[in-house]
Amino acid sequence: MSRKNAFYAQSGGVTAVINASACGVIETARENRDKIANVYAGRNGIIGALTEDMIDTNREPARTIAALRHTPGGAFGSARYKLKGIEENRAEYERLIDVFRAHNIGYFFYNGGNDSMDTAHKVSLISKRMGYPVNCLGIPKTVDNDLPITDNCPGFGSVAKYIAVSTREAALDVLSMAKTSTKVFVMEVMGRHAGWIAAAAGLAGSEPGDAPHIILFPEIPFERAAFLKRVKQCVEQYGYCVIVVSEGARYADGKFLAEAGTRDAFGHAQLGGVAPVVANMVRDELGYKFHYAIADYLQRSARHIASAVDVDQAYAVGKAAVKFALAGKTAVMPVIKRVSDKPYRWRIEEAPLAKIANKEKMLPRRYISRDGFSITEAARRYLQPLIKGENYPPYLNGLPKYVSIKGVPVAKRLNTDFVV
Amino acid sequence: MSRKNAFYAQSGGVTAVINASACGVIETARENRDKIANVYAGRNGIIGALTEDMIDTNREPARTIAALRHTPGGAFGSARYKLKGIEENRAEYERLIDVFRAHNIGYFFYNGGNDSMDTAHKVSLISKRMGYPVNCLGIPKTVDNDLPITDNCPGFGSVAKYIAVSTREAALDVLSMAKTSTKVFVMEVMGRHAGWIAAAAGLAGSEPGDAPHIILFPEIPFERAAFLKRVKQCVEQYGYCVIVVSEGARYADGKFLAEAGTRDAFGHAQLGGVAPVVANMVRDELGYKFHYAIADYLQRSARHIASAVDVDQAYAVGKAAVKFALAGKTAVMPVIKRVSDKPYRWRIEEAPLAKIANKEKMLPRRYISRDGFSITEAARRYLQPLIKGENYPPYLNGLPKYVSIKGVPVAKRLNTDFVV
Repeated sequence: MSRKNAFYAQSGGVTAVINASACGVIETARENRDKIANVYAGRNGIIGALTEDMIDTNREPARTIAALRHTPGGAFGSARYKLKGIEENRAEYERLIDVFRAHNIGYFFYNGGNDSMDTAHKVSLISKRMGYPVNCLGIPKTVDNDLPITDNCPGFGSVAKYIAVSTREAALDVLSMAKTSTKVFVMEVMGRHAGWIAAAAGLAGSEPGDAPHIILFPEIPFERAAFLKRVKQCVEQYGYCVIVVSEGARYADGKFLAEAGTRDAFGHAQLGGVAPVVANMVRDELGYKFHYAIADYLQRSARHIASAVDVDQAYAVGKAAVKFALAGKTAVMPVIKRVSDKPYRWRIEEAPLAKIANKEKMLPRRYISRDGFSITEAARRYLQPLIKGENYPPYLNGLPKYVSIKGVPVAKRLNTDFVV
Repeated sequence: MSRKNAFYAQSGGVTAVINASACGVIETARENRDKIANVYAGRNGIIGALTEDMIDTNREPARTIAALRHTPGGAFGSARYKLKGIEENRAEYERLIDVFRAHNIGYFFYNGGNDSMDTAHKVSLISKRMGYPVNCLGIPKTVDNDLPITDNCPGFGSVAKYIAVSTREAALDVLSMAKTSTKVFVMEVMGRHAGWIAAAAGLAGSEPGDAPHIILFPEIPFERAAFLKRVKQCVEQYGYCVIVVSEGARYADGKFLAEAGTRDAFGHAQLGGVAPVVANMVRDELGYKFHYAIADYLQRSARHIASAVDVDQAYAVGKAAVKFALAGKTAVMPVIKRVSDKPYRWRIEEAPLAKIANKEKMLPRRYISRDGFSITEAARRYLQPLIKGENYPPYLNGLPKYVSIKGVPVAKRLNTDFVV
């Protein structure tokens, strides 16, 4: 049989635009029904393949698939589940191939970050070895923006936009109250290893004195005295101080600030939360009234303020993955190549999964100002285009109209259970 | 002289739409230049009047005033500064009148909440007693939605929309990850005394099983056992649990779940950090993986997702205040009267400040479900229209184009300093 099915799975932390990639995959597959009979989606990611719990996307109407483009979260369910090395965990890989073979699946699209690219790569290797070669395509997705080779990662631009917009808005609030009330505002953002998201907050201001006044990057060892001195300077000079802190901010010895721990009114240690640690430091040393926000999941699910560029790119990598697969390619991932900054132009190219798997792209030092508290012009040139354009979802009664899938299961063909 | 000047001041915590009210005041005054020569705005609210530090709004171009309609925060600066009783603090009231007299100010527009309405009322009384009667108009503003008589308060609808949208979005994120990762998500929202903002989160879902699964209102005494039982039920039945908790959530004895122990300028306890308290409780008792967000100032400055109804009403109360003043009225506040729910229709009426000052409108018990964890249909009927419509700000390079005023000071006419 020449017509094969495809398997698509979402992996790891979801984003505001991962469903736009799913939309790109499914719509492009539907345009090629002569080659791809159906796209089966893993319920809860790769676990859906291992347990033969797959969703029949042919049962979803075109309008549902189209609406995935503006729906945040992972419509089919995602999973934090990493397949280990082939030698350690051969049974899982073999199970995957058994399921693919049973369902005539010839294409595997894995939408995730570094770990997922590693898995997709390994599946391509073992499928050949097992005599059932599957075209394995990675589809990049991560708010952390830390995949190598690709200029940026779908998912990041929308978080970046949310953080830049929120910083600008909250700063106006604090500025207007600073005379008699809050003088220091701290916002905690994601990015445990790399400061890409924290850096995006820097787009909120452009003139000297604009917020954010201080960004605390994971890449720059935190120095308490220098930090507090800068806070004091800002409050004295501008009347207020807006601080954006990455959850990964750490001391020179590698210890996270968040591990320092604060205690609540009852003396109980409070878990997590670098923002209160920083805020309490400011209060204890400088006595300024403070507020803090922890954006947490709000930042990566905020489809209502998604970047139009990000949505377009998320769709494009999904579409390109299908085209690559149909061209016979395997063990590659579509990457975004920046053609020019101004005007911003980009195109899709391909890169081998082997060069992407398990590698992290850190925020370059040249994107961080010499004093370590803000971003440089080079960073702005890189970041600015990624938040460009608004792509609003449709609304009904004041709320975004997001879609849910029917999720009709594909009939099982194997008589064996598999426990993950 | 028949042409008088007007004085306008912003008071208390700012909102996403308080500047829309300022826009309504100034644009309407400009349409009546035969009666109002200029609007002087207090720099940092009432403190600007006391220290004779006023901004000449005639020096702001029409496009700046128009752009206030889509700019969050308080463009002229706000203040948490409460004038005490007249007998206790006669000097401050007399100073105000001295400044008004020196600058030929015949109209006082005070844009704030309960405390500010009390101040505006007292100023109207003392101005008469001092032989310099000033028309004193309150303009309602509070995210807390707790002013009496008016059906709702400008500022609330936009926070309500932000919270409902964010809850819906974050819930999709958690749902997609719950199989292998976060099962419980806690979002902390504002509302020290009344659960209006927390209630708005309830709009995010409409079907049984939809998030938010649990809302913790300040009005319902927190019961640990009942709460934990419900969390467990949700996770077992739906796979996840989204909890929205008001910063004012408290035990039966009145003690806040998160008492920070610090107090603001008005002596109100300053709260913060109830989300980690609730999240840790869930972890300790049930062991579920959790995340939490603290929206803090992001919620009240999020002009990018403002409610169109809220923006219109904020403008309308500013405009109405000027019209009332020109009609010779004093010691009144424009209120929003709901004419019908479906279709939602409203009009502006007036109410005496004496009936509004220092009174709080609590969330009615009939808006909260019997079990205390969600909202009723009556609440939905009330809340739904307030978040209707999107009113997006203009964007440039991916960021909202918010305006700053030039802030040209009005020349001082008094030779005396006044220390606040």
